[in-house]
Amino acid sequence: MRVVALETHDIRFPTSLELDGSDAMNPDPDYSAAYVVLRTDEGAKGHGFAFTIGRGNDIQTTAIKALEPYVVGRDCSDLGAVYRDIVGDSQLRWLGPEKGVMHMAISAVMNALWDLRAKLAGKPLWLLLAELSPEEIVDLLDFRYITDALTQQDALDILRAAEPGKRARIEQLRADGFPAYTTSPGWLGYDDDKLRRLCKEALDEGFTQIKLKVGADLDDDKRRMRIAREVCGTGFPIAVDANQRWDVETAIAWIGALAEFEPWWVEEPTSPDDMLGHAAIAREIAPIPVATGEHVQNRIVFKQLLQAGAISFLQLDAARVGGVNENIAILLLAAKFGVPVCPHAGGVGLCELVQHLAMFDFIAVSGSMDGRVIEYIDHLHEHFVDPVVIENGSYVAPLAPGFSSALRAESLAEFAYPWGPVWNTANESPPIS
Amino acid sequence: MRVVALETHDIRFPTSLELDGSDAMNPDPDYSAAYVVLRTDEGAKGHGFAFTIGRGNDIQTTAIKALEPYVVGRDCSDLGAVYRDIVGDSQLRWLGPEKGVMHMAISAVMNALWDLRAKLAGKPLWLLLAELSPEEIVDLLDFRYITDALTQQDALDILRAAEPGKRARIEQLRADGFPAYTTSPGWLGYDDDKLRRLCKEALDEGFTQIKLKVGADLDDDKRRMRIAREVCGTGFPIAVDANQRWDVETAIAWIGALAEFEPWWVEEPTSPDDMLGHAAIAREIAPIPVATGEHVQNRIVFKQLLQAGAISFLQLDAARVGGVNENIAILLLAAKFGVPVCPHAGGVGLCELVQHLAMFDFIAVSGSMDGRVIEYIDHLHEHFVDPVVIENGSYVAPLAPGFSSALRAESLAEFAYPWGPVWNTANESPPIS
Repeated sequence: MRVVALETHDIRFPTSLELDGSDAMNPDPDYSAAYVVLRTDEGAKGHGFAFTIGRGNDIQTTAIKALEPYVVGRDCSDLGAVYRDIVGDSQLRWLGPEKGVMHMAISAVMNALWDLRAKLAGKPLWLLLAELSPEEIVDLLDFRYITDALTQQDALDILRAAEPGKRARIEQLRADGFPAYTTSPGWLGYDDDKLRRLCKEALDEGFTQIKLKVGADLDDDKRRMRIAREVCGTGFPIAVDANQRWDVETAIAWIGALAEFEPWWVEEPTSPDDMLGHAAIAREIAPIPVATGEHVQNRIVFKQLLQAGAISFLQLDAARVGGVNENIAILLLAAKFGVPVCPHAGGVGLCELVQHLAMFDFIAVSGSMDGRVIEYIDHLHEHFVDPVVIENGSYVAPLAPGFSSALRAESLAEFAYPWGPVWNTANESPPIS
Repeated sequence: MRVVALETHDIRFPTSLELDGSDAMNPDPDYSAAYVVLRTDEGAKGHGFAFTIGRGNDIQTTAIKALEPYVVGRDCSDLGAVYRDIVGDSQLRWLGPEKGVMHMAISAVMNALWDLRAKLAGKPLWLLLAELSPEEIVDLLDFRYITDALTQQDALDILRAAEPGKRARIEQLRADGFPAYTTSPGWLGYDDDKLRRLCKEALDEGFTQIKLKVGADLDDDKRRMRIAREVCGTGFPIAVDANQRWDVETAIAWIGALAEFEPWWVEEPTSPDDMLGHAAIAREIAPIPVATGEHVQNRIVFKQLLQAGAISFLQLDAARVGGVNENIAILLLAAKFGVPVCPHAGGVGLCELVQHLAMFDFIAVSGSMDGRVIEYIDHLHEHFVDPVVIENGSYVAPLAPGFSSALRAESLAEFAYPWGPVWNTANESPPIS
């Protein structure tokens, strides 16, 4: 597998105009992708991206471009070796290590390599991964800094224990899909009527869980929870998501005030860097469970969240940690601690990516769908070549080869920042560069 | 205080040629600065930088440039407000939050604003800060995510308790300076004779502590510790620094094998993200103390290291967290937990910056020099307009107005990457851009 060129695109969608995606921390996001295309001699291409919410997408694109020498002209057959080489580069590592802009860039490039690998194999990524042997999977990983919680032998044991029944689970997945929950009703920017209507639609469409954004105003949160509870009925899972809005003590008090509405989980109650804070909140609000992960920077932080008993649901993100390789380590850590993985999605293309990881988890790691759902948000799928398909509130297993990560050529042209027609409303010419 | 322009420079020193700065994680660093100059109408300029070790310095420079709209043309009189505005920008925040490339960019810009402020005030930064009232200092901070450990009232109490004796401590500092320790003898790339010679020189120069790099090879570490102990004598503080090389269990075993040489502290035994790992190591290797901080991303991680009892020395870095403002919060957290701050330095200009923070800590926060030393490395000071001065193993309090952060114009020209004469050895012309 030889890459001959790496090209980047700064793609931004003006989502702030509609208040889609508005929450207590992010009032006006322009959902964006720092998008990478890997070209090969044979014509096959790999696609990946980092998801951002607008400003700074150019920085993210620059960071992806800086990884060109690590893949172009190199033999990329061994994706475990490529991953460990990039993550281990001592000079780039200084910019993290393994966090923030540089780590998201690694994620984009590694995911693009996986897209390419799956395309060359003619399989959807979830199936390609599920058919690897336990030994091949372990060779993809970097165990540095997690061996106190998960050794190579632990990983092999988990993967081998999941071998029986793989075929049956693949068939089950193909027949029934993977359960989804929807966040679409719950954005803070929506009024009560829209909330009520969207809750109703979610039920009609077969979703078995919804999620509301909270954290800006307690009275608003109570009123919106009451509406959602009325529409959905007692016992229906309604998760809430504070998007890091609170300090530890505020979180405990605020969740206490929402307890009567029986939140299914409380997501991101405080800083994603605060493992001990999450643990303190979890202790105080029990039995209401804590969920987090979309902003967790790497496997080392997930390890500690699990060690500290801070989370009951692990919400991995497909494009923030170091791509497929690191996410497999995170799936294995979750399995070791018996915590279900309910991936974060939404944004630009996160649903497209993360379905593959959750399906691989079901088939080859946890072996279970119990307590597991993938987030679903009905944003921006039309820009993808192979968009997710939801039927009866479940993700349909994708069959097209690859990682479902390719944007449509028309969308790349239209939403290019700052010179695509959507942004360049004055119809000025780009500067000569 | 009005900034009219923000300019950036990608400055790299080819330090890898001499193995200066070589350690177990960083075999061949090219010490670099993503350098920023803020210009004003009146001619005064502010200087700041992020320190990197080579590749990726261009990404860091791009990130700094992206902050232009947050300072240029704005009223920057209230540096607490500017800091909270930049850190709180929801779109940029997505790239962290408060970590990695984006946060180091914020650090560079905030530090440049402080340099400018101190120049306009005609005072060295340490004195400017030390003369602020407790209320003015608290107004500079962002207490988000730390109120479970340090409230605004706690901060005021600590600062007020340090008010008596300020004048006397300023005089003491001016007379005696602030104690330093030197890492210069201990780079892994040096042979035994050079190690022995440099240990001897450190003693002759009056340093009261040295530090050796460890973690690549245990037999080498034992031999080098033995040499250093022979030269320095029983009881002389010799710290060791593993630069994140180990997993938790390896760290415990390795330090155990070095215990006979009585290390003064063990620095960065594992990932800077692993608070629970540091705490486990600290428990197991006691009474040998653990130190860390140069790669700690923000106040939230420092808070947890302190809450978990994981560190006995806090090694803040002047240019990784969000600049002066966040470092004041970190000094206050350390004071609250009674842990001495021994700042990380070296690199490009970190000694120049961090001396101001340690001196402010002594005068206005901790009120003490007990157990406190500032790292000193004799690298690259000649490139600074106002380089640090070491006398009798101590930092001499700088008197020039500002933050000592300005690079010399000749150095900016010579080490500009990639077109300065040091890098452009083929004497090619730069591309037309």
